[in-house]
Amino acid sequence: MTDDAATRKRRAGGRAGNKVRAGTSVIDQMPWRLPVNSDRPIEPMDEDGVQAIHRGTMRILKDIGIEFLNPEAVAHLKKAGCKVDGTNVRMSEDFVMEMLARAPETFTLTPRNPERELIMGGKYMLFGNVSSPPNAWDLERGKRSGDFETYKEFIKLTQYFNCIHFAGGYPVEPVDIHPSVRHLDCLYEKLVLTDKVVHAYSLGAERVEDVMEMVKIAGGLTEEEFQAKPRMYTNINSVSPLKHDYPMLDGAMRLAKRGQPVVVTPFTLAGAMAPVTMAGAVTLSLAEALAAIALLQYIAPGCPVAIGTFTSNVDMKSGAPAFGTPEYMRATQMTGQMVRHYKVPMRSSGVCASNVPDAQGMWETMNSLWAAVQSRTNMVYHAAGWLEGGLIASPEKFVMDCEVLQMIQRYMEPAVWATTDDDIAIDAIREVGAGGHYFGVQHTQDRYQTAFYQPFLADWRNYEAWQADGAVWTTERAHRLYKQILAEFEAPAMNGDHQEELRQFVARRKQEGGAPTDF
Amino acid sequence: MTDDAATRKRRAGGRAGNKVRAGTSVIDQMPWRLPVNSDRPIEPMDEDGVQAIHRGTMRILKDIGIEFLNPEAVAHLKKAGCKVDGTNVRMSEDFVMEMLARAPETFTLTPRNPERELIMGGKYMLFGNVSSPPNAWDLERGKRSGDFETYKEFIKLTQYFNCIHFAGGYPVEPVDIHPSVRHLDCLYEKLVLTDKVVHAYSLGAERVEDVMEMVKIAGGLTEEEFQAKPRMYTNINSVSPLKHDYPMLDGAMRLAKRGQPVVVTPFTLAGAMAPVTMAGAVTLSLAEALAAIALLQYIAPGCPVAIGTFTSNVDMKSGAPAFGTPEYMRATQMTGQMVRHYKVPMRSSGVCASNVPDAQGMWETMNSLWAAVQSRTNMVYHAAGWLEGGLIASPEKFVMDCEVLQMIQRYMEPAVWATTDDDIAIDAIREVGAGGHYFGVQHTQDRYQTAFYQPFLADWRNYEAWQADGAVWTTERAHRLYKQILAEFEAPAMNGDHQEELRQFVARRKQEGGAPTDF
Repeated sequence: MTDDAATRKRRAGGRAGNKVRAGTSVIDQMPWRLPVNSDRPIEPMDEDGVQAIHRGTMRILKDIGIEFLNPEAVAHLKKAGCKVDGTNVRMSEDFVMEMLARAPETFTLTPRNPERELIMGGKYMLFGNVSSPPNAWDLERGKRSGDFETYKEFIKLTQYFNCIHFAGGYPVEPVDIHPSVRHLDCLYEKLVLTDKVVHAYSLGAERVEDVMEMVKIAGGLTEEEFQAKPRMYTNINSVSPLKHDYPMLDGAMRLAKRGQPVVVTPFTLAGAMAPVTMAGAVTLSLAEALAAIALLQYIAPGCPVAIGTFTSNVDMKSGAPAFGTPEYMRATQMTGQMVRHYKVPMRSSGVCASNVPDAQGMWETMNSLWAAVQSRTNMVYHAAGWLEGGLIASPEKFVMDCEVLQMIQRYMEPAVWATTDDDIAIDAIREVGAGGHYFGVQHTQDRYQTAFYQPFLADWRNYEAWQADGAVWTTERAHRLYKQILAEFEAPAMNGDHQEELRQFVARRKQEGGAPTDF
Repeated sequence: MTDDAATRKRRAGGRAGNKVRAGTSVIDQMPWRLPVNSDRPIEPMDEDGVQAIHRGTMRILKDIGIEFLNPEAVAHLKKAGCKVDGTNVRMSEDFVMEMLARAPETFTLTPRNPERELIMGGKYMLFGNVSSPPNAWDLERGKRSGDFETYKEFIKLTQYFNCIHFAGGYPVEPVDIHPSVRHLDCLYEKLVLTDKVVHAYSLGAERVEDVMEMVKIAGGLTEEEFQAKPRMYTNINSVSPLKHDYPMLDGAMRLAKRGQPVVVTPFTLAGAMAPVTMAGAVTLSLAEALAAIALLQYIAPGCPVAIGTFTSNVDMKSGAPAFGTPEYMRATQMTGQMVRHYKVPMRSSGVCASNVPDAQGMWETMNSLWAAVQSRTNMVYHAAGWLEGGLIASPEKFVMDCEVLQMIQRYMEPAVWATTDDDIAIDAIREVGAGGHYFGVQHTQDRYQTAFYQPFLADWRNYEAWQADGAVWTTERAHRLYKQILAEFEAPAMNGDHQEELRQFVARRKQEGGAPTDF
């Protein structure tokens, strides 16, 4: 391959439906990178607004309190001097802020392939696959319950796309696998089929411990190496309003004690589990998040944590959750302001309410993703594949979203807005003159291969060319593309000993019965 | 109607496909308003970058010059002291900046219905219909040449939607009407079927003068009243690179002399008519725009003008224009920085390359529209209905885009991010407590009717409800909706004498042969 061809391979995109190119790559996608979001965040609130939300958050923590449905957590917080009344725990501002100050502003996450190491925090922006829908949908089969085969398909898409940085929760729940052993099968496939950072559900001690053990095995890590830096993470949701349940707290504490990151994401739907006002919903969400973070920093000072936002609104006519709304966008921006105030990394999501990967699905998802950019979100959950408020994972949507994620990555490349003399190009403007054309000049020839984002799914041909080629709409193109990608998927390299050890671990734990399912 | 019902009527949205509500309104849309964009603009360039683009712009104007293919314009500029060589005119920075300083930062536009008065500049953001496609496309009829019936349909949609502030160019070219009289028929319908600000194409003296006369007649204005403030506007495009043609300059000068606004929008596709680098394309675009504005300010000091951007990139494989790309977004933001530096209002667009109103169409359009917000654009051309790089107008896309425009308007309402004590809602949070629900509390009851954006096209029902109702995808819902809107359209009130005078004017001018078509 010549240098030119190599450059082109890295940067230039293909067109959906085109013949597969030489080699194993269905599309010419952008290379793996950690995008840096240098845009100044959009900050709707002034400093008084930030202080008002902060005061409200502290009042909730001090006067109303948060329910911790976990005796170990309550005992820790009692020892820390918090006011405990049964499961209700009230915390002073001084305590919360002192604990918060222990949290790092930035940390790394290193999976079994160290080249996939992530930086979480600062201006870095990381994208993850859709997580946790019970159902799948595609153009051929419609909506159906998730199963293990479909799970593996989404894990392959997660690995395939360079713009997906981490493998979040199960992209679809494989309900054909018994819950007692589901985490073993799922994590095995996730650790073998991807070499990216993985996640553990905080759904019981055994699951959490199993996943940590499997991550160690897959990476060939000693316990000391595992604990030396973040190797995986969990995400916990509070039971809004004002409550943290047993297994989430249990899992969070288990990870924190071993130096693994915990993202705390209250699910505060304004008008349902949270006040109908965005400021109220954001305040409640922050109080719940800070309460859990204070606990974790108390038991494991300096442990990596992040604040997640899942604040949106319901449809007041049906109570159904809505996503990608104007209110969702502002709540995400407001949360961003507060999270920067509290100096920890931030998580948000790429979400929509649409039932199918159509125009509505994209305008809602675009609103969510641009809100993530505007809020300087560090970790974008559900960035590819999400439909129906999280009840459906769709491979077509996954592929469509990855086109958008690549565009956001390109949007963040400083070369786009560079203003050197070469960029301003006065000599080329003089050379071409009035009424001329820039295609042929050297300034263009030197740059055209890398000058612009090249889509792999968008069709930029004119109507007649598009029509002559079958008039294929975007969703159908995405459908064809995801099947091609799966057909040619190659798993990443893995140390054979590690894979064998992983297999044996799964077999042994299955024999032992896996995890209890009665919590 | 009770007060509550009236409030609901104003704010709450309907669901596409629902039965038509009582009264004449197919959908419950947001009321007419001039949205105010209080977001701090996204500014990729630092001050050095702004100065570098400025210096480049001035070097083009001073050293390379712009072709003015209009003897009157050249004569004016020669008199002004510019260096003239045939049609090439070179201008000093001092001259350009002195002329630019004459331009108002903000101006109004007042159509025949003064309640539709617009404010152009500052933080105001105005949306206009798609303009100038030669073709129409809809789900039933596919792609076909524009005709007068279709033109009128789009004009009705333009009037119907409160989020459309001005009636731009012809939403589709009615090729079944001879070009000599097309402007007469088109403007007659536009002035009768809408009461919003209208536009004149700068395509020859007769057309421009006719449109100005018709605007006067429709508003019942004397010449003095007409000239007293902006009543309509034109948009001129340079022939990039470096050229302004005869009719555009002629029209612009005719309007400027009578106090009517001129938007100058170079069409600089990076890699084709402009340098392949965004900074180069933006610099060229600004030089062309400032050259025309300097001319207009010289002949009509203080006349209202705006700088438009149409900088995007081509697909380097086919040469086809691309829109809504990352490069488009950054170029729009960069232009915004420069236009604020030059202190005049700014125009950009809601554009895409997609051939049909599908997912690609929406992600490209969303990128364009968010770039408009991010750049603090004042006037968004083609904000509803645009497809295929401007070669197609689609009524489904029009309706879909209006949903997005309404969301942007809601996004801009300060109530969304308000942080009064009532918004932070500590009392409600205390009242509901842990594990409770906010649906029933007074804080929610007092606010739920206006708390959230209510869509008219998005379907927020769950999959099963949506499926039971026919599983209608967004484009099909938009199709049904636009037909309902047209079926029930009522033209705005118009003074009968003015309408009759308008009719007679059109008849007379047709008898005279309209405008010559041989320029």
